Amino acid sequence: MRLSHFYLPTQKETPSDAQIASHRLMLKAGMVYQSSAGIYTWLPLGLRVLRKIENIINEEMDAAGCQEVLMPTIQSAELWQKSGRLDSYGKEMLKFKDRHDRELLYGPTNEELITEVFSQHIKSYRDIPKNLYQIQWKFRDEIRPRFGVMRGREFLMKDAYSFDIDYEGAKKSYWRMYQTYLKIFKRMGLTAIPVRADSGAIGGDMSHEFQILAPAGESSLYYEVAFESLDFDDPNVMDEVVRLYAAVDEKHDPQSCPVPPHQLKQSKGIEVGHIFYFGSKYSEPLGAKVMTPSGQLVNVEMGSYGIGVSRLVGAIIEANFDGEGIKWPDPVAPFQVGIVNAKTHDPKAVAFADAVYEKLKEAGVETLYDDTDERPGAKFANMDLIGLPWQVIVGAKAVEKGIIEIKRRSDGTRQELDLTSFINQLAA
Amino acid sequence: MRLSHFYLPTQKETPSDAQIASHRLMLKAGMVYQSSAGIYTWLPLGLRVLRKIENIINEEMDAAGCQEVLMPTIQSAELWQKSGRLDSYGKEMLKFKDRHDRELLYGPTNEELITEVFSQHIKSYRDIPKNLYQIQWKFRDEIRPRFGVMRGREFLMKDAYSFDIDYEGAKKSYWRMYQTYLKIFKRMGLTAIPVRADSGAIGGDMSHEFQILAPAGESSLYYEVAFESLDFDDPNVMDEVVRLYAAVDEKHDPQSCPVPPHQLKQSKGIEVGHIFYFGSKYSEPLGAKVMTPSGQLVNVEMGSYGIGVSRLVGAIIEANFDGEGIKWPDPVAPFQVGIVNAKTHDPKAVAFADAVYEKLKEAGVETLYDDTDERPGAKFANMDLIGLPWQVIVGAKAVEKGIIEIKRRSDGTRQELDLTSFINQLAA
Repeated sequence: MRLSHFYLPTQKETPSDAQIASHRLMLKAGMVYQSSAGIYTWLPLGLRVLRKIENIINEEMDAAGCQEVLMPTIQSAELWQKSGRLDSYGKEMLKFKDRHDRELLYGPTNEELITEVFSQHIKSYRDIPKNLYQIQWKFRDEIRPRFGVMRGREFLMKDAYSFDIDYEGAKKSYWRMYQTYLKIFKRMGLTAIPVRADSGAIGGDMSHEFQILAPAGESSLYYEVAFESLDFDDPNVMDEVVRLYAAVDEKHDPQSCPVPPHQLKQSKGIEVGHIFYFGSKYSEPLGAKVMTPSGQLVNVEMGSYGIGVSRLVGAIIEANFDGEGIKWPDPVAPFQVGIVNAKTHDPKAVAFADAVYEKLKEAGVETLYDDTDERPGAKFANMDLIGLPWQVIVGAKAVEKGIIEIKRRSDGTRQELDLTSFINQLAA
Repeated sequence: MRLSHFYLPTQKETPSDAQIASHRLMLKAGMVYQSSAGIYTWLPLGLRVLRKIENIINEEMDAAGCQEVLMPTIQSAELWQKSGRLDSYGKEMLKFKDRHDRELLYGPTNEELITEVFSQHIKSYRDIPKNLYQIQWKFRDEIRPRFGVMRGREFLMKDAYSFDIDYEGAKKSYWRMYQTYLKIFKRMGLTAIPVRADSGAIGGDMSHEFQILAPAGESSLYYEVAFESLDFDDPNVMDEVVRLYAAVDEKHDPQSCPVPPHQLKQSKGIEVGHIFYFGSKYSEPLGAKVMTPSGQLVNVEMGSYGIGVSRLVGAIIEANFDGEGIKWPDPVAPFQVGIVNAKTHDPKAVAFADAVYEKLKEAGVETLYDDTDERPGAKFANMDLIGLPWQVIVGAKAVEKGIIEIKRRSDGTRQELDLTSFINQLAA
C-alpha cells in the first residue's frame, strides 16, 4: 500500500483526554476515531490489526474443534427474563423497545441466546460435545468509558460456549479452552497469566482470568516466574501450567503462598480473556436438555469463554511501546514492512524504492510504502509511531550500491543488506 | 470438515411461516435460526456463505482503490439532527437513550457518521479522492419483517462513501462503483441489471439499483437481452453497459421505449445493491469542507454505495435452486465438495472415503465429508438440499476399481473417474 493513497490520519498533537499510552498512541497513529463516548470508528490501520487478531483466534478456535456461528447484536428481552438476568444485569445493559413496543436489548454477552439456539437443534448425547463461538460486537453501557478501546462501550468480543453431557465432559472442554487461550495469546507475542477468578455476572463455580503483563494494567498480580519460560510445544505443558501459582493482589497472601518469594514475580496485568464453567445455570431455566445414552433427559453442562478482541489491540500496545510509538509484535502488525524513501527528490532513489515495493509485494510481504514528499525526519518519526516491525530505508547507498538499511522496530537494531537477503530473512 | 462433527442442524419439515424458497431452504439446510422477528443467528453453513460473499466484495472494493474502515453500530443522534434526518427517517430507525439519557440510535445507514470521520481528518484536495467502505451490521425496524434474511431487521451491509473535490470527480467515483458492482455480482455467478432509480431516503440526483434476476423478485423489470452476454474482460464494456436499456415496471412505457420489443426481456428482480450521487447533501450541513488547489473552501462532493450482504445469501438462492434444494454457484459455496460414503458398513469403503477426504484437504479443496451412519438415500437428499457444487459418491466401484462417481449439483450430470483426475478438473 502506498502511503500517498492510504487513509492514515496520524495526529501531531497528543490528545489531551487520553490517559494511557495505548489510547494516546491509537489516536496519534490514526488507528481509531472516537465517534461517541466509548464508541469508536476503526480506521484502516486499526482495522488491519483487529483482523489479524481475529484471524489468530479463528485459527486456534477451529483447531480446537470449535464451530463458528454469528448471533445478532439485538436480542429479545424475553430470554433474559427466563434466565433471571434481565433485571440483575444492571444498567450496563442497553435496553429499548421496538416500534411494536417489544422489549429488546443489545447483547452484553450471549449465554441465553446460544443456549436457545443449541436447545432448538441438539437433543442427544450423540451430537455433543459442541463448542460454538462467534466474534461479534457487544455493548455494555459503562458509566465512565475510558482508556480508549480498553474500556469502550461498543466492543468486539470472541465468545465461545461449550455443551457437554456431564461434569467430566464440561471439565475437559474447560481445560481445552484454557490451553487454547494460552496458545492464542502466545501467538500474539504476549505472556498471558491465567489467574483463578470469581465468576461475577456470568455465575458458576470454576473460572480463570487471563491477564497479560503490562505496566498500565488495572490488576496487580503475583505469579511464578516459570510462566515466562513455558514451552508450548511440549505436550506436557498443561500439566505444568496448572500447577503454577498465580493470584491477583487481593487474593495473594504472602504468609500462605506455597511458592518461595524468589520464584515469584509481581506485575500489573490487563485482563484480556475470561473463562467460566457454570454447569446448568442457563440450561436449566431455558430448558436445554439432552438425552443420555441410557435414555435419561439431563440439563446440558455449559461453560463460556470470552476474549476481548478490540481490547486486545490496546492491551498489545500497552505491552509493546516506547517513547517514539508502537512496537507491533510481527503476528498482529498491520503491515510487516514500512519503506521510507529518504531521497524523494532523487529520481533514481524513487525508482529504487518503487522497485523495492514491487518486489516485496510480489514476495507476499505486507508493505506500507511512504512515497510522500514529507521530509525524511517526519517520515522516520511516523514509521516509529505506527510501529511496523521492519523499516526499509532507501538512501544514498541504495542508489549507489543497491544496499538498503533495515531497522528492526522492536529493538532499534540496524543492518545493511540487499533486498533479496532481506526477503529471505523475512521468509525464514 | 466431517459432518459427524459439523454443526449442521438440517430440518426435515418445511417451516410453515416461510413464504419464499430461499427462506424455506435456509431454515431447512440449517443455515440460520430466527432469534426474533427479522433477526437471525447465522449457523456455520450460512456463515461460510456470508464470509465468501464478504471476501468477494472486499477484494473488488480494494481493487477499485477503496479503503476499509469499520464504524460502530451505535451512533449519537446529534449528528442526525444536524443532517435533518433524525425525524425524517421515520420509525424504521431504532432510537433509544443510554444510562446518561443521551439519545443514541442503531445505524440504519452511515452517511452522517462517515462524513464526520472524513471531515475530522481530511481538509485538502491533496488527500482526495477517497472512497471509504465498511461491512457492518445495520438495523431497520421494518414494520413487517419477512422473507427471511431478504427483509430482516438486523442485516449485514457493505456501505461505501466517496469524497471528491467537484462534480466531475464525483461522477467518476460514481461510475467506478457502478462498474465494480457489475464485477462483484458477476463473480458471484449472478446477472445483475442496473436500473435508474429514485434516490429515496438518501436523497440526491443520480442513482441506480442493481437487480438480480430471480422469479421470486419483488420488482418487475424490462431489460435489453444484451445484458446477459456482456463480456466483462472487454475494456470497453462500460461504454456498452451504460447505453443498454433497463427499467422497472412502473417506469417502463412500451410506447416510448427506445428498444424494439424483440430485444427486450421481462423478469422479476431482487434489489441487491443501490448507488447514489448526492453532492453536498451531507457535507454542507455537517461542515465537511476541503481546500481546492486555488485555496477555496468547498463542500466535499459525495456519493454512497450499498450492497445487501446478508440479503445476497437469500437472493443467490432465489436465483439458484430446484425442488431438491440449493444449487450454490462455486464462488460462494460453503464447501466446494461433499463426499457421500454410500457404504458405511463396508470397512474398505470407509477407508477409501477417508482417503478421498484427506487428499481433497491436502489439495486445498473445501470439503464436507458425510461420514455419518445415515442411509445413503438420506445422505444424497441432504447433499442436494445444502447444494454443494460437487458431490463425490463412494460406492462399490470405488472399492473395486478406485473409481468415484462425481455429481455436478447445478445440472445433475454425473461422471465416473479417479480422484486425481477430479482434483485436476477442480483446479483447472
